[in-house]
Amino acid sequence: MNIQKPSIPKGTRDFGAIEMARRNYIFSTIRSVFALYGFQQIETPSMENMSTLMGKYGEEGDKLLFRIQNSGEKANEPAEKGLRYDLTVPFARYVVQHKDELTFPFRRYQIQPVWRADRPQKGRYREFYQCDVDVIGTKSLVCELELIQIVQEVYRRFGIRVSLHINNRKVLAGIAEVIGEPEKMMDITVAIDKLDKIGIENVNKELAERGLSNDAIDKLQPILHLSGSNEEKLEQLSVILAESEVGMKGIEELRTIFELVNNSQLPPLGATTLHSKLSTLNLELDLCLARGLNYYTGAIFEVKALDVEMGSITGGGRYDNLTGIFGLPDVSGVGISFGADRIYDVLNELNLYPDTLEQTRLLFATFGEAEQAYALQWAAALRQKGIPTEVYPEPTKMKKQMAYADSKHIPFVAIVGGDEMANNTVMLKNMTTGEQKQVTLEELGNDELNRFAK
Amino acid sequence: MNIQKPSIPKGTRDFGAIEMARRNYIFSTIRSVFALYGFQQIETPSMENMSTLMGKYGEEGDKLLFRIQNSGEKANEPAEKGLRYDLTVPFARYVVQHKDELTFPFRRYQIQPVWRADRPQKGRYREFYQCDVDVIGTKSLVCELELIQIVQEVYRRFGIRVSLHINNRKVLAGIAEVIGEPEKMMDITVAIDKLDKIGIENVNKELAERGLSNDAIDKLQPILHLSGSNEEKLEQLSVILAESEVGMKGIEELRTIFELVNNSQLPPLGATTLHSKLSTLNLELDLCLARGLNYYTGAIFEVKALDVEMGSITGGGRYDNLTGIFGLPDVSGVGISFGADRIYDVLNELNLYPDTLEQTRLLFATFGEAEQAYALQWAAALRQKGIPTEVYPEPTKMKKQMAYADSKHIPFVAIVGGDEMANNTVMLKNMTTGEQKQVTLEELGNDELNRFAK
Repeated sequence: MNIQKPSIPKGTRDFGAIEMARRNYIFSTIRSVFALYGFQQIETPSMENMSTLMGKYGEEGDKLLFRIQNSGEKANEPAEKGLRYDLTVPFARYVVQHKDELTFPFRRYQIQPVWRADRPQKGRYREFYQCDVDVIGTKSLVCELELIQIVQEVYRRFGIRVSLHINNRKVLAGIAEVIGEPEKMMDITVAIDKLDKIGIENVNKELAERGLSNDAIDKLQPILHLSGSNEEKLEQLSVILAESEVGMKGIEELRTIFELVNNSQLPPLGATTLHSKLSTLNLELDLCLARGLNYYTGAIFEVKALDVEMGSITGGGRYDNLTGIFGLPDVSGVGISFGADRIYDVLNELNLYPDTLEQTRLLFATFGEAEQAYALQWAAALRQKGIPTEVYPEPTKMKKQMAYADSKHIPFVAIVGGDEMANNTVMLKNMTTGEQKQVTLEELGNDELNRFAK
Repeated sequence: MNIQKPSIPKGTRDFGAIEMARRNYIFSTIRSVFALYGFQQIETPSMENMSTLMGKYGEEGDKLLFRIQNSGEKANEPAEKGLRYDLTVPFARYVVQHKDELTFPFRRYQIQPVWRADRPQKGRYREFYQCDVDVIGTKSLVCELELIQIVQEVYRRFGIRVSLHINNRKVLAGIAEVIGEPEKMMDITVAIDKLDKIGIENVNKELAERGLSNDAIDKLQPILHLSGSNEEKLEQLSVILAESEVGMKGIEELRTIFELVNNSQLPPLGATTLHSKLSTLNLELDLCLARGLNYYTGAIFEVKALDVEMGSITGGGRYDNLTGIFGLPDVSGVGISFGADRIYDVLNELNLYPDTLEQTRLLFATFGEAEQAYALQWAAALRQKGIPTEVYPEPTKMKKQMAYADSKHIPFVAIVGGDEMANNTVMLKNMTTGEQKQVTLEELGNDELNRFAK
């Protein structure tokens, strides 16, 4: 038998118990907020037909698709199936394929891995989870409000302070129009998206390289430097874009969204208990926010953590024709995507994980077989009280059993010897403080453990 | 733009909102029981190196592996990566690769999809979830007990009556020995595994085809027809296998497991509240239980639903050298796997899903923009009370909003018109009974909805 050195493909990861407990905390927090807003989960297959995937992510994206070899006679023909590259295209495919079964507006969320044959590097993986939430089938800006509220509530629960940057593709189109380069909206978008990273001089250089006239670049400068409150910026912008129909439509949409957000942060109606527990939202109109994807047509969002240097941790926007390619035109939707890997890093850096993630709370350590049988009965009772419990499976040296508890960070050990059995107790040890005390089964419950933990 | 008819690869599935809510119920029920027993979740990559996968599932299995095309220059060379075929081999690879970070005995569970290029047919898919739980690094039969308890508790929570069939590979080896065909243990195993499906005559025919002597087949017959209680069967078997060392070891293991199970079902110790809420376990020694996989070396299990015609819904066993191929010999472990797709079907057939799976509890339907703004504030308050709430995003025709609630099976609609706004109420409608009443925001909570539901 050949012995193989175990390894995994580059760009992929194993997640151990601690990482998984943290990832589960992230996903379950996000899911529970989605559920409060009436979003329901769907899942699509890991493999899609290549025809579903090709041409949806640009030329570069096509190259990054993982292809599945055909089986049998077709092995040497072009691959028929590929791995999901994101959750958006499968979602569009799903909506069209199942349109007769769905109730619109359709509210769904989806948390699944995606695969990209990217060159692996720090923080960039070939397999990673996406976590998307979308409403499709309505143009109502109430959906934008709800997504903003979801962002606010998710990060409130995590304890991460964030700012939410918002812009509108129609405003960007209006800007392209009034500076005299209406065809160059995507070029402008791509260039100014980099303002934060490369600075204004390099942005202007790139704009010139992308064929913008000097005149247009000059006209763009004051727009990139608008200042003041969101309302003040919109006021100035409405003068600049006065001649652009699409630009003014974008301003109107932004005004409506700000208004909806402001109203939803108002003090309670009448004498009720409506007072919002949400922290104040940092909602910032950011005219340099562009987002690379070309299917956005309305509001676009990005969320950044205030206390950690990190790229966008959540982003999204409105699209008017995502399902068109699959034969269902003119269905507007809006969605955002939470970046689980980056949220993981932010929580780590700020040390914001709760103390009690999924793990064993109490281990029975025993001196012999009779003690073990006794412990097994206690364990069954504690599990009925909802306490995650283990019995060390071998009545081996006490030192080894304690080392096991230590290494797994199990907070309590219940030691069982002959004395304890004789008087129907266990010796409960707090592994943090070293404190010990005898307890009966009636006493031993979550309350007692919480008291003893202090 | 070409319009594509949306479809997915054969043998794969989309899961819609209702299916996902049910699947989430299944997985979360199983997970919460695993957690009570101190098992922790891990995840491994969807892709493994082909060297990890090849040769682990027999010749047939190698053919059913989904291979990923290499990229770039290596595109025409044999695939370096393949999709996970089960969770067992990746688990073995994981344990060896991370052995220095793990605490043994290592208790893990894993719930992830696997892929097989099988011919798709009813109930057989090319992508499906497995749900495995294992302890590795101890020979203690307490682990077998815990897995049996987990099975019992999981199915108790589901409300599914089951029988748990148990056998032992060492007993099967002993039988092969005493009938004079020690080399043919796997042949015997594979044949008698089919007893239920094809009957004793066909089993005997297959045994002959597999090269067993008539004498051996004759000797096997009484063993296949042992009857009585588990203890009686073991008693008879211990006479038959008296000359086989391995067979007697198997009997001893089975006796220990039965004893552990019996003790754990005893009445409470002393005057405690230990009384088990678990239903009585149908644990049945089944000498025809063989299980196809060749890595099992000790106890083997299978679980069947009593009230539905269906194959095994959970199965597993002990293995002594799963990690050997990756360079870590002599590490014994035991595990079981829950079949989510079959459990789904059983719950469906017996109509055992809880009424309230993840879904919107209340929809606000409004007559205009002012009413919608009012509803948005109420919705925020209800969500703070933990009630999954939607506001219909457009103040369109009331009929359309009610149809939306109907089609999504939302149990309550809160109707908001001018009158309701004027006196700070909503008109709450029970969508099942048609009953309506005016309520204030203070009144509107989970308790009120529960009362009104009746």
